[in-house]
Amino acid sequence: MNKNSSNVMALAPNTSNKRETVCIFGTGDFGRALGHKMIQSGYSVVYGSRSTQISNLIPKDAEVLSHAEAAQKAAIIIIAIQRQHYNFLIPLAEILRGKVLVDISNNLKLNQYPESNAEYLAQLLPGSRVVKAFNTVSAWALQSGTLDASRQVFVCGNDVEAKQMVMNIVRALGLTPLDKGSLLAAQEIENYPLQLFPMWKFPIFLSLGLTAFFFFYCVALDVIYTYIYEKRDFSFFIAITIPNRVCPVMALILLALVYLPGIFAAIIQLYRGTKYRRFPDWLDKWMLCRKQLGLIALAFASLHVVFTLVTPMRAFVSWRTSKGIISQALNNKTEPLNNTNAWISDSYLALGILGFFLFVLLGITSLPSVSNNVNWREFRFVQSKLGYLALILCTAHTLVYGGKWFLSPSAYKWYLPNIYILSLIIPCAVLVVKFVLIFPCVDKPLTQIRQGWERNPKHSE
Amino acid sequence: MNKNSSNVMALAPNTSNKRETVCIFGTGDFGRALGHKMIQSGYSVVYGSRSTQISNLIPKDAEVLSHAEAAQKAAIIIIAIQRQHYNFLIPLAEILRGKVLVDISNNLKLNQYPESNAEYLAQLLPGSRVVKAFNTVSAWALQSGTLDASRQVFVCGNDVEAKQMVMNIVRALGLTPLDKGSLLAAQEIENYPLQLFPMWKFPIFLSLGLTAFFFFYCVALDVIYTYIYEKRDFSFFIAITIPNRVCPVMALILLALVYLPGIFAAIIQLYRGTKYRRFPDWLDKWMLCRKQLGLIALAFASLHVVFTLVTPMRAFVSWRTSKGIISQALNNKTEPLNNTNAWISDSYLALGILGFFLFVLLGITSLPSVSNNVNWREFRFVQSKLGYLALILCTAHTLVYGGKWFLSPSAYKWYLPNIYILSLIIPCAVLVVKFVLIFPCVDKPLTQIRQGWERNPKHSE
Amino acid sequence: MNKNSSNVMALAPNTSNKRETVCIFGTGDFGRALGHKMIQSGYSVVYGSRSTQISNLIPKDAEVLSHAEAAQKAAIIIIAIQRQHYNFLIPLAEILRGKVLVDISNNLKLNQYPESNAEYLAQLLPGSRVVKAFNTVSAWALQSGTLDASRQVFVCGNDVEAKQMVMNIVRALGLTPLDKGSLLAAQEIENYPLQLFPMWKFPIFLSLGLTAFFFFYCVALDVIYTYIYEKRDFSFFIAITIPNRVCPVMALILLALVYLPGIFAAIIQLYRGTKYRRFPDWLDKWMLCRKQLGLIALAFASLHVVFTLVTPMRAFVSWRTSKGIISQALNNKTEPLNNTNAWISDSYLALGILGFFLFVLLGITSLPSVSNNVNWREFRFVQSKLGYLALILCTAHTLVYGGKWFLSPSAYKWYLPNIYILSLIIPCAVLVVKFVLIFPCVDKPLTQIRQGWERNPKHSE
Repeated sequence: MNKNSSNVMALAPNTSNKRETVCIFGTGDFGRALGHKMIQSGYSVVYGSRSTQISNLIPKDAEVLSHAEAAQKAAIIIIAIQRQHYNFLIPLAEILRGKVLVDISNNLKLNQYPESNAEYLAQLLPGSRVVKAFNTVSAWALQSGTLDASRQVFVCGNDVEAKQMVMNIVRALGLTPLDKGSLLAAQEIENYPLQLFPMWKFPIFLSLGLTAFFFFYCVALDVIYTYIYEKRDFSFFIAITIPNRVCPVMALILLALVYLPGIFAAIIQLYRGTKYRRFPDWLDKWMLCRKQLGLIALAFASLHVVFTLVTPMRAFVSWRTSKGIISQALNNKTEPLNNTNAWISDSYLALGILGFFLFVLLGITSLPSVSNNVNWREFRFVQSKLGYLALILCTAHTLVYGGKWFLSPSAYKWYLPNIYILSLIIPCAVLVVKFVLIFPCVDKPLTQIRQGWERNPKHSE
Repeated sequence: MNKNSSNVMALAPNTSNKRETVCIFGTGDFGRALGHKMIQSGYSVVYGSRSTQISNLIPKDAEVLSHAEAAQKAAIIIIAIQRQHYNFLIPLAEILRGKVLVDISNNLKLNQYPESNAEYLAQLLPGSRVVKAFNTVSAWALQSGTLDASRQVFVCGNDVEAKQMVMNIVRALGLTPLDKGSLLAAQEIENYPLQLFPMWKFPIFLSLGLTAFFFFYCVALDVIYTYIYEKRDFSFFIAITIPNRVCPVMALILLALVYLPGIFAAIIQLYRGTKYRRFPDWLDKWMLCRKQLGLIALAFASLHVVFTLVTPMRAFVSWRTSKGIISQALNNKTEPLNNTNAWISDSYLALGILGFFLFVLLGITSLPSVSNNVNWREFRFVQSKLGYLALILCTAHTLVYGGKWFLSPSAYKWYLPNIYILSLIIPCAVLVVKFVLIFPCVDKPLTQIRQGWERNPKHSE
Repeated sequence: MNKNSSNVMALAPNTSNKRETVCIFGTGDFGRALGHKMIQSGYSVVYGSRSTQISNLIPKDAEVLSHAEAAQKAAIIIIAIQRQHYNFLIPLAEILRGKVLVDISNNLKLNQYPESNAEYLAQLLPGSRVVKAFNTVSAWALQSGTLDASRQVFVCGNDVEAKQMVMNIVRALGLTPLDKGSLLAAQEIENYPLQLFPMWKFPIFLSLGLTAFFFFYCVALDVIYTYIYEKRDFSFFIAITIPNRVCPVMALILLALVYLPGIFAAIIQLYRGTKYRRFPDWLDKWMLCRKQLGLIALAFASLHVVFTLVTPMRAFVSWRTSKGIISQALNNKTEPLNNTNAWISDSYLALGILGFFLFVLLGITSLPSVSNNVNWREFRFVQSKLGYLALILCTAHTLVYGGKWFLSPSAYKWYLPNIYILSLIIPCAVLVVKFVLIFPCVDKPLTQIRQGWERNPKHSE
């Protein structure tokens, strides 16, 4: 019988191009926007409202009735009212028995209530078939038709047939339904639209802080110091020269910070002799934002590449080059090719290019559509093997480039080290400890622990 | 009983590695290609045909019978005939009762018939279980095994079990079934293979037109003018110099055109005092192709970046540089560093780099897999906030770069403005109006309107 | 009744925040890791084990019972034991009747057994409802919570309700279930985690081999030859100069190799007069790895672009430039602009930029999320039309760049051709044959064959 009715429902639009009636409880903004859109898509819409007076705001093709009357006209009722008013539905329980109730509500805060709104509705009206949908769509976008964001509508519910009916409506409105399973998923769906890049917050604040620090450090050493002691105005350095010093430093440090928590985790597991105990909270959180740290590092590296490539176009650089050539010409001498210089310049460029190339590869692999097509072994290979190779190449690039300054006393203005030197501390530490960890005498127990072996099995959690 | 039969079906291949029998009505190209592929995948195939004579074109392991006989041999019948011949199935209605009919037909035009072919078939044979599938797969690709395009096969149907059976066949052929829901989705699935970038047509023609206009404008001013009045042949400018003038202009104008319709929409809503009336058609269409306009703008911007970066490698530029240096050397003087020039050059480069960086970020966010992982709030933040920031940076980049030419009379060859000046009109207009719109006295009523408030509620649609 | 029970199950966590009991057979590493995670997520876990002695390794909140006792406590039983021990479940068949058995096993080799482990389990215990899941998740990742790889868990099974129950558990553990259909999909799911870029192996080995060959070829001609005959040490060429010769050569050859198999296929079909015969095995395999070849070609092309763009920053290049300018200055002469040189330099740069631009476009189109949003016609347009255009532009770029060396005898050191010349052989051959194939007299029969026409219909397969 159910199967027949769903066939009839599906075929109806073809014979008459007129779809079934849908009831909407509530005449707020979202209820009206949805009603407009549904009428445009061929549905009959009937509103259930406490008062039928406010009908002038409502699409003119829609009917406005009392809740009880409206509910009797449709098999699907969209609950466009707020959770705190759900109580008034209890007296209607008998009329709503067997009906499909679509919960479209959103909360103001993450996990505002112990259970999701949809589950709460299902508890209030156990005889109805509750489906969660539409809460991730914006009323404004629905109305203006400018859904250039995601057209996905998450749908969940315990009753498969009810869910199917709601998914048909979603599809008829030109949106893409995505079945998220049973009503258990409602909490996740309700939290979804409240987030603003939750995983990105810490990495972004960290990078902003570090960037500001290194920027002012460089301004002090390169602009202010030069102005005070050499009386030369290099203030224009803050447009390109200094950003192009800060970006590679940030990229290298953030890339090292991606691999540092893995090192800590290995040390903790070796120390504890088991993998079955939770890591400290800070380490867990750090591990969960490694992807974001890596992508921000990639952004800095890309900026460094472009800043570097525009070098020959800068007025300052052309002036410096001309000055060098003219002074040679006026002195009537041609300097011979310095082979060591040629080697150093070419090798740090080549190391940087290869490091950046691997870095971009890592970035592409972390695109959702690529990483979903890659299994665990492949992901580990790319992110771990190629990632460490990128870190090694980038560290070597910095070492070869900055190497000549390490021992030169003129590099220590105001007794402060150059930022090249600062930037190398974490990457070198990570690489050294990782090198120790891959020695067989350390690697073997670690592998055993990760395969479930425990040094001291009587642990308590 | 149904559950048992599906279990038996699923287990059958394992015990004998031989799959069930499938019937194909029609021996055209697609029917044969599908039959070949199914036989290779372990299915028994029986063809239903008007005449059993043309069997020599048919895979030799397949049987050819009359339609009625063939249909009785299988639970699944693939209808590989054209819609206009569906009528001949009506006499077979009794034999086809309860069978799974797979509609694989395609039309020649979008929305050629009022209802989809699959829905038409379901109406003709109400006792059968119709499933739409395979129409998006190319016979040639199926046959040659070169399915490097999407392996997705869209499947829809009202009967869940029938759909599951067809999806199993899809999977056995090495393709990926994608459940699109009930038969309502058939129209969309049938239109799908007929499209050739429908949303891209207008943006591409617009950009081609504008590009051609600016290209010839530049050729006239930079090559022909110079040739006539200065007797110098700069025809090689059309390879790099002029493209590198047209690309940034196009990128800036197209980026401004992405944000212009939003400005119009805001003005229209302020004027009307409601959001519940449809925008004019041209504005709706414009809004729907903003993403495409933005991506084409990004393509132009990327070309501009690469064209700019190869500058030092150009023979013309090396010659010009050498000439400058040699003339300084011969005059025995060294020009001092011009601090203003250094500032201007470095700042337009830095503005351009940052603008391009944000632009690329916007482009990455519009990849389907990324935008599907982003909620409405996040999408708005990136596309609106970061998008306007990119527009501001790119406009500033152009202003700083082209600024010196605005007031110089030599820039107005033939009394025509330089294209830098032309390119700035739309972006500056957009930024000025947007600046007005974010003033509280304008923003407040606009926000109210977008939240559903109406100035004059007695509107009629 | 089933529906009710599933409702009760779904609502249970809300009322008490305590989920149902799950039984795990087997106390190996994965069984324990899964148990830990489930207890953390609110499930009660009971282990079924041969001996209840080894309980100290097991999460302390879990109970350990005999298999029969444990099975009776839960509706869902996770079989965390190896396939070769499945036999011991047969005596428990009566207790396991109607229960949901989750097969999480993996094999050591691809297609190790004739049927998948899950199908084997379903055959052993026909009364139970077998669901395949969790085998693609790593125990280590599950335990440490560092699931930054794909969170997808492939689920398949013949019983829809059982599958739904398992998918709810998957979701409760913070993972994303992906329904792959009936148990037929189990083989594919079991093979999935064993792969390490299977499609990439041949293309990567091919490119490594060719790269090594061309690298040493260049080292011989550019470094060793120069050292022997001109006594100059250009060993630093191996950092940038030679890689930047090898990369474009590799990119061009690999791009041509993407289109070569299509040419072969057309010739074979023209010769045979039918499309209904399989291609030779090597051609099939070649065709299936075209996408990978193309992406590796793109990687080489990108490296070539960056290597080229850093040219002005190289110490060797600055030295060479200064030397040229100084010698002009000392000779007191300024060379006039060579218009031909300007044309050649600008046009090979422009050709290269446009070719690379199209190449990147092809690369973006092959991202899974983009190619899934594109239909067959669109994919063909991009990959075939734009692909050939990219090949033409890149070949022209190489021809214009390398053209001057073809006839110069000094280019033939040790009578060996320059690698520019070698690199052009395959692309030019592909373009010439393709040009012949689009002549109407050849194209027409080919099109007919691809539409299913056969020259000699009495073929046997």
